[in-house]
Amino acid sequence: MVSAKMYELGTKKSTIRTIFEFGRKRAAEVGEENIFDFSLGNPNVPTPDFVRDAAIDILQNSEPSAVHGYTVAPGNPQVRAALAASIKARFGMDCAGKNIFVTSGAAAAITSCFKALAETGDEFITFAPYFPEYKCFVESVGAELKVVKPRPEDWQIDFDDFDKLLNAKTKAVIINSPNNPSGAVYSEQTIAKLAEMLKARSEQFGHPIFLICDEPYRELAYGVDVPWVPNFYANALVCYSYSKSFSLPGERIGYIVVPNSIADFDKIFGAVAGAARVLTHVNAPSLWQLVVAKCAGKAVDITPYERNGKLLYDGLIAAGFECVKPQGAFYLFPKALEADDYAFCERAKKYDLLLVPGADFGAPGYFRAAYCIKTETIERSLPLFKKLAEEYWS
Amino acid sequence: MVSAKMYELGTKKSTIRTIFEFGRKRAAEVGEENIFDFSLGNPNVPTPDFVRDAAIDILQNSEPSAVHGYTVAPGNPQVRAALAASIKARFGMDCAGKNIFVTSGAAAAITSCFKALAETGDEFITFAPYFPEYKCFVESVGAELKVVKPRPEDWQIDFDDFDKLLNAKTKAVIINSPNNPSGAVYSEQTIAKLAEMLKARSEQFGHPIFLICDEPYRELAYGVDVPWVPNFYANALVCYSYSKSFSLPGERIGYIVVPNSIADFDKIFGAVAGAARVLTHVNAPSLWQLVVAKCAGKAVDITPYERNGKLLYDGLIAAGFECVKPQGAFYLFPKALEADDYAFCERAKKYDLLLVPGADFGAPGYFRAAYCIKTETIERSLPLFKKLAEEYWS
Repeated sequence: MVSAKMYELGTKKSTIRTIFEFGRKRAAEVGEENIFDFSLGNPNVPTPDFVRDAAIDILQNSEPSAVHGYTVAPGNPQVRAALAASIKARFGMDCAGKNIFVTSGAAAAITSCFKALAETGDEFITFAPYFPEYKCFVESVGAELKVVKPRPEDWQIDFDDFDKLLNAKTKAVIINSPNNPSGAVYSEQTIAKLAEMLKARSEQFGHPIFLICDEPYRELAYGVDVPWVPNFYANALVCYSYSKSFSLPGERIGYIVVPNSIADFDKIFGAVAGAARVLTHVNAPSLWQLVVAKCAGKAVDITPYERNGKLLYDGLIAAGFECVKPQGAFYLFPKALEADDYAFCERAKKYDLLLVPGADFGAPGYFRAAYCIKTETIERSLPLFKKLAEEYWS
Repeated sequence: MVSAKMYELGTKKSTIRTIFEFGRKRAAEVGEENIFDFSLGNPNVPTPDFVRDAAIDILQNSEPSAVHGYTVAPGNPQVRAALAASIKARFGMDCAGKNIFVTSGAAAAITSCFKALAETGDEFITFAPYFPEYKCFVESVGAELKVVKPRPEDWQIDFDDFDKLLNAKTKAVIINSPNNPSGAVYSEQTIAKLAEMLKARSEQFGHPIFLICDEPYRELAYGVDVPWVPNFYANALVCYSYSKSFSLPGERIGYIVVPNSIADFDKIFGAVAGAARVLTHVNAPSLWQLVVAKCAGKAVDITPYERNGKLLYDGLIAAGFECVKPQGAFYLFPKALEADDYAFCERAKKYDLLLVPGADFGAPGYFRAAYCIKTETIERSLPLFKKLAEEYWS
């Protein structure tokens, strides 16, 4: 009567959802303040005042039809020009309005790229640990997702394993830096080596391998540079979102950058537009298009995230955990204290520490702790992490 | 290198787009005021003040995270409850928050329904004249769209032709009332007969045939009632949008109603959620969710549309055109003055009258004139329609 696949996708509870519901139940029993919920990647730095002020100014002082009317599908031309100018100024890449396709957030951006590029039999490659929704989106466009094994010493790229997966069917590679869930930022060396390998393999296979850069965490980097990938590789597409950089996850606003350097710009931009259309994109929310253009180049204050990350990292290290130091996003991805990360996360629940098993991200034996929560909650959680660790060593 | 289908969908210029571009070119040559552009269904009654005031109030007085944070996929629970209460009060249908799935506009709403329901080999049926995007969306979910021939005397339903197309493969029927492009509103008799026929055929074929009601023009009806379809037929899904009722087409906000009466509510609601997910829905824009809940039950002032419709209708009738009197939406769908509606619309361009051929909507021999434009433009266009008609009769 209905599509079995859609029913399954719509009703199968994700691990994070299950943890979240457990947390709500426990909060009702023992009080909100006694739940240490590290499970959700929901930005907790408030939306900046400059965003609210821009929205109110536009609502008060612009013609309603200019604010709320349809825009053309790739976005309001003035908005695209403003975003392109900001990219050009920041990264030195040749960029104009025609290179920007404004989307309803990053999910729409990446899936429009996947659907634009996917032909029968295509493979896409990503790197563990990875955002699990990639699998759903890649499969929904009829392609297959291959996953490179993790490199736990620094969560950069295992190039040997990557090279084994590259083949003539590889249409595109998806990277996410700063990374959810590892918190790693791919270094310039990593990106340069990735570009070099993709260039060689593209030549070998006789067709371009595209690099899709999912960058919702670009502005959340702590003391390290996030390389601008199109400066290293011609066939890169950048997908951006304001969910984290402006703390606007509910408003669904982001964009795709299609650089001039890409193989056959017109073909790719046209296919992105067609893919967006069948994904029911009409235009990205029009007020938010104007707001992000007005605030181009700005970002939330990331010091609360940086402070939280350091606090949690230092606390976990002191408690005896192994963890790569966070460089970006708002996640730590430490080693679980037993091989079975599900069992470890179950055990952590005894202390009302809500953590997500690494296996959910393709990296068993680790766990994700999202630190976009109150600093005070992190402070009060540290003795509990210590107790949990002591259980394993007693 | 890219999906040929996506490239085609993203680059093939629609007739309306071609007309629009012709209009821009002519406006540059002869002046904006000398172009009579009846081609676009873009609401021109300004967004009501109550909508702007609600948005500003929410931005100024609510916690940013409560306004801009992720909501669960079907929408903010308070918003769903408010919309459901409004539906219950207006239409007397049993409706609660769980019956509402808030979407990014009507395109997402209808396509989520199509994708939720479509299984291999399924057919969907709609009635000419129809919104051409239905074909794109139905085919994108792997089903086939069958079109019932038009009934030009009143643009209601040709039940004989409809009955010929119904068969065991029919999964769902799509109706759009008030209709784009005909301006017709399906009467209570039409809906009752449709329900009766669908019920009989569902029993005959041994599975429910769903009725998807695409209702973005519900509030734009002039002196006639728009029947609430779930009160007539158990297996109806209603898709709504605020694009016209609040003049917010750019903001992408609407919803799906899944009534309790539907065959297997949980299965269908679950499949809608899965379909929305792969169509990259995360949640409908969160500020606009709050705004529409706050303004539930209100609508734009439709008197400018009613006045325009009457003016254009009377003018065309006086000029000798044949046309069904408009009852809703903001379109007239008169008979072209020659059998070839493309040729007729080309000829109209001589007078800078920009009209859309009926063949684009599956009804050759007619044309669509959107009257959501300045009243003064319509007034000044009438002598030109008269001249155009006289060309045919001289």
